[in-house]
Amino acid sequence: MGLVVQKYGGSSVADAEGIKRVAKRIVEAKKNGNQVVVVVSAMGDTTDELIDLAEQVSPMPAGREFDMLLTAGERISMALLAMAIKNLGHEAQSFTGSQAGVITDSVHNKARIIDVTPGRIRTALDEGNIAIVAGFQGVSQDKKDITTLGRGGSDTTAVALAAALDAEVCEIYTDVDGVFTADPRVVKKARKIDWISFEDMLELASSGSKVLLHRCVEYARRYNIPIHVRSSFSGLQGTWVSNEPIGDKKVEQAIISGVAHDTSEAKITVVGVPDKPGEAAAIFRTIADAEVNIDMVVQNVSAASTGLTDISFTLPKTEGRKAIDALEKNRPGIGFESLRYDDQIGKISLVGAGMKTNPGVTAAFFEALSNAGVNIELISTSEIRISVVTRADDVPEAVRAVHTAFGLDSDSDEAVVYGGTGR
Amino acid sequence: MGLVVQKYGGSSVADAEGIKRVAKRIVEAKKNGNQVVVVVSAMGDTTDELIDLAEQVSPMPAGREFDMLLTAGERISMALLAMAIKNLGHEAQSFTGSQAGVITDSVHNKARIIDVTPGRIRTALDEGNIAIVAGFQGVSQDKKDITTLGRGGSDTTAVALAAALDAEVCEIYTDVDGVFTADPRVVKKARKIDWISFEDMLELASSGSKVLLHRCVEYARRYNIPIHVRSSFSGLQGTWVSNEPIGDKKVEQAIISGVAHDTSEAKITVVGVPDKPGEAAAIFRTIADAEVNIDMVVQNVSAASTGLTDISFTLPKTEGRKAIDALEKNRPGIGFESLRYDDQIGKISLVGAGMKTNPGVTAAFFEALSNAGVNIELISTSEIRISVVTRADDVPEAVRAVHTAFGLDSDSDEAVVYGGTGR
Repeated sequence: MGLVVQKYGGSSVADAEGIKRVAKRIVEAKKNGNQVVVVVSAMGDTTDELIDLAEQVSPMPAGREFDMLLTAGERISMALLAMAIKNLGHEAQSFTGSQAGVITDSVHNKARIIDVTPGRIRTALDEGNIAIVAGFQGVSQDKKDITTLGRGGSDTTAVALAAALDAEVCEIYTDVDGVFTADPRVVKKARKIDWISFEDMLELASSGSKVLLHRCVEYARRYNIPIHVRSSFSGLQGTWVSNEPIGDKKVEQAIISGVAHDTSEAKITVVGVPDKPGEAAAIFRTIADAEVNIDMVVQNVSAASTGLTDISFTLPKTEGRKAIDALEKNRPGIGFESLRYDDQIGKISLVGAGMKTNPGVTAAFFEALSNAGVNIELISTSEIRISVVTRADDVPEAVRAVHTAFGLDSDSDEAVVYGGTGR
Repeated sequence: MGLVVQKYGGSSVADAEGIKRVAKRIVEAKKNGNQVVVVVSAMGDTTDELIDLAEQVSPMPAGREFDMLLTAGERISMALLAMAIKNLGHEAQSFTGSQAGVITDSVHNKARIIDVTPGRIRTALDEGNIAIVAGFQGVSQDKKDITTLGRGGSDTTAVALAAALDAEVCEIYTDVDGVFTADPRVVKKARKIDWISFEDMLELASSGSKVLLHRCVEYARRYNIPIHVRSSFSGLQGTWVSNEPIGDKKVEQAIISGVAHDTSEAKITVVGVPDKPGEAAAIFRTIADAEVNIDMVVQNVSAASTGLTDISFTLPKTEGRKAIDALEKNRPGIGFESLRYDDQIGKISLVGAGMKTNPGVTAAFFEALSNAGVNIELISTSEIRISVVTRADDVPEAVRAVHTAFGLDSDSDEAVVYGGTGR
């Protein structure tokens, strides 16, 4: 008998009907001979409503109390889900993060899981129950306070429980059919990916794909837990994320997994920086001290006549203000001329482990962008990813052009052959 | 420095404004030099909304999961209240029933508190915090499952914590000014009672007064915790409930504390019962086995000609169906002729320890009812209470007549003198 962990997001359990539909799906998994652990998020807009209430009573709610408040959301959905399952004639018990043994550090609102001790879950399963666990929450190791895991935390709860219980698979149920070769809202011909490696999924997640968060995939890779991302509405096979294709699935690793895009970033250019050792360090120490995470960095070639250069970097728009303030404050120490802030940029990334061994991918990528008339402002690469920054307005056309050029369109049978002298 | 436990009901924290108003009141108590523990109920209609959701997913929600669901309500209100207090510049921490050490038995939906181990509350207080505790909930001793205490449970939480922490007083904040000599909606001239003994309060609570539940007063009496019932809106002194008047309060025990009424009961008459030993026992064993609580009982004088008698008793209307079914099922064994069910009755009770030593109270009570043209159907008495059953329609007039007759009206300076030969 296998052990399956299933996770259902807020849109899957938005109302009583959704909860009853999900309950049926869970019971199916149990009837198929599995032990079933279910991780559930708060219903639909519950969390937003609770945040709204918090803002009404306090402009800066304290972390400990804010976490106590938000965790009420999963408490409601998990209890209702357990009731709905019992109403179908199966045994179910719900558990808070604390009861399920999800132990975290003490950083409220974005705690990290440091241990999982699922003794009560194991007992509940052994007694024939379906175990329902509140996602997104845990209890701090030192103070025994309730914590929350931050954005996408329920996915991480599911993977962490799957690892602790040595589950066969962690199924992430969502409102889309799986991971696609590009965002289907932008690329109509985007294809659902049947299987993708942890590495490619990590690159997609950090390049703007929203289906799975980086942190959750990283956790799954570390403990080698296969993830199956699928729809709670359709029942179709979704996307498997794992080290190797699972079981009888004859899926070869594609050269290119997909095209991701991200328009949530802005670009800051530090203009007129003296081109001497230690200048870049001074800038990025300032940014780091302000606790701003940056993404891409580029330093222009210095103009010999002035001895000055420009340094550009990208960062989340939400951190733009903080970074600008920190740099302006340290301007005397750093010694630059001015700052330019640009939030009309977009990032397009091509991801695929196959580019390591297939020369010419970079050239084909740039040709596709050039043919679409898209100007490139910044470039950054990893072993299995190329990213460029363009104007935000150019992003949809650029994503479509690249998606077509690499033979990813759903009705394309063409195999793309890369020539040239390496990427 | 004293320790005060305050309890706020759902109507006091119905919205963000209510929470902020309550937070100010709590901070006042802290500024007055007290250590403050606050027990809070769920906001306004939250519990009803959760019950509604439960009914949508399951017609018979399981006790364990139902309790898990309902306790989300206090989790929300307590976290918001702690945030609101911190926003006023004072330290506050919220605790679930489980975290506060409220240990119960395992009877879901109506658990009883069997121990309180408030170690975390004590620590929070010693560190200068105001401690906010979820009312109505606890954790079961054997299974460590979340339990709820049933109707009025938050009052019991407050009194139990006050006892465990050796508090000076347990303040119950509500939406009325205190305990009145009669229900002010029925008797316009009802007076607020400044002080009442535990014994009289217990009788009022079991006779229909809704301000405090019997269970909570019983707990307070056992541990000798003074209760101060007062309004969270007005800030006025309310009603003290204790063994003796507190501190500098020169309050004498009134002969009569008040008039309570109750129209939530029905009367069942078992007609044509053979007048022989064991018949009443058979009837009330049947009722007890059906887990129905009965209130008043009266057996008519047997008609010598038939050897048959009638037995009447009152019980909550909500249990009427269950009692009738149980009696009908056992009719062959008991051997009665028929059953009569009457849910158009009301009960009027006069409560006061003074009636023990003041003869004539009973006579004056019956005279008042007679003068008001009210017919009496059943009578029951304790040492400090007389109750009668009348037609439900007669109740308001009867309560007013008795209230006036015993000099309880607010503008009456008259001292009532009882004559006669005992009650």
